[in-house]
Parts: sequence; C-alpha cells; structure tokens
Amino acid sequence: MSAATRLRRLDESATITVFEKGPYTSYANCGIPYALSKVIKDDAALILHTPKYFKEYFNVDVYLNTEVVEIDRINEQVCTRIVGEAEIRRVDYDKLILSQGAEAVQPQIDGVDQSHVVTLRTISDLQAIRTMMLKRCLRDVCIIGGGFICLEAAENLRKIKFGVSIIEQSAHVLPPIDADIAQVLHTELKRNGVKLYLNDTARRIEHSHVVLASNGREIPADLVILAVGVRARTSLAKLASLEIGAQGVKVESHMETSDEDIYAVGDMVETKHIIQQQPGVVALGGPANRQGRIAADDIAGRPVCYRGNIGAVICQVFDLSVGLAGLSVSALRYLGQDPLYVTVHPPNHASYYPNASPITIKTAFEKSTGCILGVQAVGIAGVDKRIDVLATAMQARMTVFDLEHLELSYAPPYGSAKDPVNMVGFVGSNLLRGDYQIIHAEDINIKNLKAWQVVDVRSPEEFATGHLPGAINLPINTLRNQLSKIDKSTPTLVYCYIGYRGYLAYRILSQRGFSVVNLDGGLKTVVEGGIKL
Amino acid sequence: MSAATRLRRLDESATITVFEKGPYTSYANCGIPYALSKVIKDDAALILHTPKYFKEYFNVDVYLNTEVVEIDRINEQVCTRIVGEAEIRRVDYDKLILSQGAEAVQPQIDGVDQSHVVTLRTISDLQAIRTMMLKRCLRDVCIIGGGFICLEAAENLRKIKFGVSIIEQSAHVLPPIDADIAQVLHTELKRNGVKLYLNDTARRIEHSHVVLASNGREIPADLVILAVGVRARTSLAKLASLEIGAQGVKVESHMETSDEDIYAVGDMVETKHIIQQQPGVVALGGPANRQGRIAADDIAGRPVCYRGNIGAVICQVFDLSVGLAGLSVSALRYLGQDPLYVTVHPPNHASYYPNASPITIKTAFEKSTGCILGVQAVGIAGVDKRIDVLATAMQARMTVFDLEHLELSYAPPYGSAKDPVNMVGFVGSNLLRGDYQIIHAEDINIKNLKAWQVVDVRSPEEFATGHLPGAINLPINTLRNQLSKIDKSTPTLVYCYIGYRGYLAYRILSQRGFSVVNLDGGLKTVVEGGIKL
Repeated sequence: MSAATRLRRLDESATITVFEKGPYTSYANCGIPYALSKVIKDDAALILHTPKYFKEYFNVDVYLNTEVVEIDRINEQVCTRIVGEAEIRRVDYDKLILSQGAEAVQPQIDGVDQSHVVTLRTISDLQAIRTMMLKRCLRDVCIIGGGFICLEAAENLRKIKFGVSIIEQSAHVLPPIDADIAQVLHTELKRNGVKLYLNDTARRIEHSHVVLASNGREIPADLVILAVGVRARTSLAKLASLEIGAQGVKVESHMETSDEDIYAVGDMVETKHIIQQQPGVVALGGPANRQGRIAADDIAGRPVCYRGNIGAVICQVFDLSVGLAGLSVSALRYLGQDPLYVTVHPPNHASYYPNASPITIKTAFEKSTGCILGVQAVGIAGVDKRIDVLATAMQARMTVFDLEHLELSYAPPYGSAKDPVNMVGFVGSNLLRGDYQIIHAEDINIKNLKAWQVVDVRSPEEFATGHLPGAINLPINTLRNQLSKIDKSTPTLVYCYIGYRGYLAYRILSQRGFSVVNLDGGLKTVVEGGIKL
Repeated sequence: MSAATRLRRLDESATITVFEKGPYTSYANCGIPYALSKVIKDDAALILHTPKYFKEYFNVDVYLNTEVVEIDRINEQVCTRIVGEAEIRRVDYDKLILSQGAEAVQPQIDGVDQSHVVTLRTISDLQAIRTMMLKRCLRDVCIIGGGFICLEAAENLRKIKFGVSIIEQSAHVLPPIDADIAQVLHTELKRNGVKLYLNDTARRIEHSHVVLASNGREIPADLVILAVGVRARTSLAKLASLEIGAQGVKVESHMETSDEDIYAVGDMVETKHIIQQQPGVVALGGPANRQGRIAADDIAGRPVCYRGNIGAVICQVFDLSVGLAGLSVSALRYLGQDPLYVTVHPPNHASYYPNASPITIKTAFEKSTGCILGVQAVGIAGVDKRIDVLATAMQARMTVFDLEHLELSYAPPYGSAKDPVNMVGFVGSNLLRGDYQIIHAEDINIKNLKAWQVVDVRSPEEFATGHLPGAINLPINTLRNQLSKIDKSTPTLVYCYIGYRGYLAYRILSQRGFSVVNLDGGLKTVVEGGIKL
C-alpha cells in the first residue's frame, strides 16, 4: 500500500489496482501479540485502513480475498481469482508490483495439522485463537520457536495468565543476537514464569501436550503456537520465471525484478545488507515501506536507489527492551569476519536521578578501521534510543572514534553528560588505540584462569559476594600501595563489576611494566551472560 | 576533573593537582532543581566524587576552597589562596588547564542584593534556599529569566506546592528555540499553574514581591531566583593576558589557549558551533567533558581535535520534553541565513498501541543541499530519542534526503515503521524536490488569507470545531468529486489538522492545474504555536 499510495501522489492519472488474497489490507500485524492480551483493547485498531479509504483518499481500487494466481509476462496481464471461486479474470498491467510478504515456515512435526496448532501472524490467526480461548478451557500454551514474535507472544500470554513454554532448537532465543545478550532475556523470561526448552525440538504434538525430541518429556499445551520463522513467498514469481535468489526474489536497486516491468518489495525480496554486503531477506516494516515508495518512485520516473538494510530491530520482553542493529559477533564470525567487540553497562540516565538502570551494550567493530559492524543492547529503559542513535551512526559509516565525539542531548531524566553511546566510543577507541587489552568473558575458563594472576579490584564487600576462582582482592583505591602483593613477571588479569575500575587498574599496572588484560564488561558480563567457567 | 582523570590514565608519572574555589568538586549541578523538590531525595547523591576518591583512584590532589588568583606565565606558576585567607602560595606547572566554568549574570535590578534573592547553580545555593524554606513561611517564588534552569526550577517548585511566576524579557521562554515551539511550553506551564510574564522585566525587588517594569504590577515573591543566563568566567585568563573572544577564552582545536602551555575547557571557552561556523560558548556538560579529555590527550602527546558543538539540549517541562539540536529558524535568520523548514506532528509510536502521543518536530535545512541545520521537538514521549537521532544525523552531515532512507528500529511500543525522523525526511524532501509548496503558519494572517481560496480538507466534524477564516470545507475523501466547487484561476491554500491530508490535496489539485500551497504542519501548528491571525 505504500507503493500504491506513493504512486498516486506522484501520478493522479494512473489506474492503480491492488489485489489482496486475505480479508484485510493494511493491518498492523506487529500489533497482533498485543491484541491477544488486550493491551491493544480493540482488534479494529489493528485495521489501519480499508478499501473504502484507499478508494476515497487515493483513488486506488483494492480487491480483497482475491488471489493473483499467475503472471502472464508476454501479454502483461495478471490472472486473478476470488478465493474459493473458480473463475479466472485477466487484468492488464503496464507495471506490476509484487508485495506478497512471507509465509510462516511449517515445521515437520507429528500432529502439526491439529486445530489447536496455530500461527500468530494475521488477524485471522488472532481471531481463531480468541475463539478457542472462549470455547475451551485453555491453560497452557506452548510456543515452538524463539524469535521476536515468540517473545512478544510469551509476554502477552503471561499477562492474561496462561502457562507459557517456549521450545527453541538453538541454544538461545533470538538467534540473530549473541548468546550472552540472549541469556539476559532467558533470566527475564524465567522470572516471569515462562518455561524455556532450549537446544530442543518438538517431536510430536498431542492433544494436550508437546513431546520433546530430546528426552520425550511432555510439555503441557492446550494451544500450540508455531513461530519457527518465515520464508519469502516466491511461488508466484517462480511460476513467472522471475529470478529467485537463495532466500527471496532478486531485485535491482530500484526494486525491479529480472523483468523490468515487474517490481517486488518487502519480505519476499532479497536486498543488500549494508554490513553483510550480501543479499538477504529482511522481514521488517520499515524497509518494506521504503521499498514500496522506491518502486513507486521508479515507476513515476523518479529513480531513487534503495540503500540496503542494517536490520535495526527492537523488542519488548516483559520489563526489558532488547535491540540489534547490524550483526551480532557470532553472525559476523559465521561470515568469516573477526571483529573486535566491547561490552559496557552504563546507566540509562544520570545515576543520581531516580530509577536509573543499566543498559548492556555489546558493540562489534572492524579491527582495521573502527567501523561499527553491529550493536546489541538490553536493559529496562533507554535501549531503543541507543539502538537508533547507533543505527544512524552505522548508516553514516561512523567509527568508534566518532562515537567518542558524538554530542547528544543531556538532562538528568534522559541521559548523562557521557552518554552510553559515548561510553561505547571510549572503550572501543581505547582498545583500537592499544590503550588497553581485554579478554572476553566467553574466553575465560577454569583452566586458562590458572595461567594468570587474577586481581579483583572491587571493594572487599563486593569481593565477599563472589569472585573469579583464584582471584586476589586488591581494591582499586589501594592498588598503587599494594603493588608488592602481585608479581610483575606473571601475566595479570584484572576485573571489576562492569569494567571501569578494571580499566583504571590496567592503566596503573601496564604503565609499571605489568602484562595485563582487563575482563571486558567485568563480572556482570560473566554472570548475566551465563558464562560457564 | 575529566581532564585530570583522563591525564592520569594516560600518564601514571605526572603530578596532577586541582584547585577548586568552591567547597565541592564534581557535583551534579544539573540535578540541583530536582534536589529542591526531593525528586532526588538526598543532596549527597549530587556530590559524585570527593577529593578522597580522586586521590585514591587517580592519585590526583584536589584542593577545595582554594582559589587561583593569578597565573604567572613567565615562571609557569599559579598563585593560590585559600578562600578567606590572605596567604598566597605559588605552585609550579608545566601545563595548566583552566576549567572555571561560567558565572550567573547579575541583572541590574533595584533590590537584587537582598538575602531572599538567590541563584540556583550550586549546592550552596540549594542549601541556602532550603534553609530559607525552613526558617520562613515561603509561599511564592518569582523566577527572573526563562532558560532551561528556570523551567526545571519552575516544575520542581510547583511539585512542592509553591506559587511560581516567571518573568522573561523576550517574547517567549527558552530563547534558543522558536516562538511557536515555546508556545507549546507556555501552555504546559500555565496548565501547571505557573504564571508567565513575557516581554517584561523586573523593575524592583521588594521584600515580598517583584515590581514589573511594564505596568508596575506587583508579582508575589517570598523568594526570587535569578536565572537570566551565564557568562564565561574569564577574569583570571584576562589577567594573564590570554586571548579572549567576544564570549569567552579563545582556544585552538586541541583546547590550547594563546599560551601553548595553558589549556581552557568547558563553559569558559569559545568553541566552534558546527552549524553556526562561528565561535561561541556552549554551556553544556557533554561538550565540557569531551573538551577536558581532549586537553588531557594533547598534554599526553595524543593530539585529538575538538570537532565543535551542535548544541544538543533536552529539557523536561512538566509532562513535556523539549529538545533542540543545531539552530532554530529564528537563530538561523539572525545569522543571515534563509533556511527551508518543515513542521510535522507524528505520534511517538504506533498509533494503535496505547498512549501514543504526537511529537511536534520543526526541522530547518539548507535550501541548496538539504543539509540539516536545526531541529526542535516537543512532546510527551520519545522526544529525546528523535533529538539524539537527528543530532547524530547532523554530525554526520546528513540531509533530509538521507532521513527518508534512515532505517530505525521499530516495534509498536517504541516507534512506527515510518518513524517520526523518516516523516521529517519525507516532508523535507518533498519540499526540496518541488513536489509541493508550503506556506508557514507564521506567514498567514487575516489579510493575506483573503488572496487565496482557502480549502479545509478535514472532515465536516473537524471543520465544525473551528477553521481558518473564509475556508470552505472539501473533505479529502470527496475532494476529487467536488473540484467544480473551487476555481482553478485563484491561488489555493489547502490545509488539514497536521499537514498530511493537505499534502494529498496539494498533489490532487496541483496535478489538475491548480496553483496550490499547503499549510505546513496544518492547523495544529497554527493553534499550538499561538499564531495570531
């Protein structure tokens, strides 16, 4: 609809027709989990616009429940059929825009075809679930899959007092983010009564439970929500012999397919990932809207290029927000890259102002240039702001050095004179300039810790609450006076709670000839990240 | 202290000494208004660090209550004196960093020297006010000045039930922003019981009231807070014959003064404004911190340039947040520039998600390039995020065209698939590409409205609640069918509530040969901006 309405604004004379297979157009599928819990009180609020609106405002004809079953490229016609009817109607086109989106991947599980096994993508799905809630006494819901919709569904189902289990085949929820960030979400999910079954799959779905593949354990499930991901809807394009890539329909920079009169946009196409530099499907509303505009612009003779995606996402998980822009460290490694990364835990706003809470920000950047490759953040407040600032910085191809200098607005309720984004810049730049060496939480273990003299520079009170194995306690405020207690000839690992005092200790020791590393992100990263020593 | 601690991290061997005239170091003066109302419960929370901390953590010697009275540049010594004593001590330096900040401007008002006339900048000020509150029965406070601290003070004084009046000599509060944005704040201040006296000054301060200059009216005032602005503290630098500019001490890009062994940082120096391209004082914590780091870097032989300021600010005003990055339209005009600007009112997040509220964003950009020159925003939620995203975009020298393409994170609780920042991009780009013509609210009046046929494209229900003089109502959803009701040969002004439907009407009419302008930001901009027709 972004394409249709943009084109109308550019061209009053065109005949613009939209065929939609489903019963609604322009509905807010991102709001569906929230409608389930009545956080969004009225389903009607999800239906943003009707065919009547598009006709009256934009002189666009929208045909609902009407499927395009074939594209006749030779005659420039589409063949349409009203859902449930047989008659085929042929409609001429000069330019055609495909915007068919993605479809839920249907996992191969015994019993997946039962009526209590549903997806949660459309208003019809929502209504089907609600009908079931009314008809039957549902108590437990099992969600198969651990992506964004899964987490939103889990939160909203807990709000209306359902028992919720999540079965995720990988080691953590939200596979696009790193395990240590996801671990913070695991803690939050469990704290809110969600049962997690990770590294596992559903072997079989019974009427009232799901059987795990691993140990045959039965997970109660009066309702099963399948959310194992989506796949670009490419069958129509395939049938028309348009070029298809590994994940979706191939398009050029003006969103045209291999047929110059046919465009494709949204979740069904492959576009360039700015960091990954490879084509891929990005199933996000922002990019889809922009792509629609660009297709319309090109049709109207205003060629504007699509610049690619960075995959900026944000998700509420109970009291936390988690966000990603660019790629996680594990995703970068999977692509063969070897990025540097740092983790910081600054407060969302001035610590002396009430309700300050830490944000964990993990930032990956290029070793040779400092160019930001990916940022992940999780916390109670202010996460979306930092993700968006950093997403903007990434699109401007900024480096961690640029983040040191970035001027952001500050008043006590909103931030700090040194904003969390600046902190990322300070720590990343220090590392790149060689001002300090770090070791990551994921790289320490019981065995290699023995090779270091491990110095905990926190206070004795903090040290007493728990510390790394073999650590000695030399609080930062007395470190300079206690240097005789450590051995200059032994490599030294320093750490504190979030990394700052460890950094100070690094600077004190390294300038005195010690060989030092600081634990990146401190003990908090080890504990919250669920790092097993 | 940023300079001192940064230098210590870079150089363990240096002798670093800090002289502070006042009784505290490193206290959070930004938090003082909030401590007044006990939003920040304990004053101690404002004192971020003590000399003991700096000695133990950083081996930095901090001398409080110690004034530097003279700089002996020939011998590279400073002359210090303990406050209240006579003895002068001379201390050698190799490098000297001045960080004396700014001092409150003392207005020339009769009665300004009385004990109930105070400033609100330091912990001592805070304590003095609190002592007065305990000793006397204070009911009414008059704030002279209308800047950021004034507004924060007004909010916090109302929270603890004081009567509050503000006397501001210009036509609106927050002179760095435009009148129409300030008008939104005026409404909020009045809604919260703050009395505003604009375009006025205090002629005389009596024991229990302030007399206005304009009409001699008496404003009740058991306490008077002076907040008419600050001035760089340059007297010591002047005494040392360092170069001083129009507003503060002159510095080069590594923060060195005209004496290469003397640096100056913070509110006392003139630095380059990135948009203004002129030196000026920016009294903000973020820039001050960065400048301190840069001075230390330079001393340690790591030359890093200061990149200049954009003046990114944010302020809470009761239930609203107001922010600015770059320059207002009036400030740009004052500098002789003739920027384009647009005003949008998008919701802070998806409108179907609960508690969506509009943000008014006014963005100025260069006519020739689209380069963003200034952004002002006001609203209930999400203002700080958009200011920071746009501040980042400005520092990356982005244009309004870039904002169209900017990918930001989206989920219903946080934003929209078309974020408010994208909306700024769409509207600005449409204007720059000549896709539509606008007229600004400030440029319409009863007289020139008569030259147009004025078409209100809102619904009849909206039209009935009030409309522009002489407007006819042709709702956008029936406009194409009612074209015969308007005259193609008469210039046409279209408008709606926030500008979007007016834009659609513009596109419909202009493509049919009408000569059209759309009212930028719609009727909301006229009404909220307090535009007098």
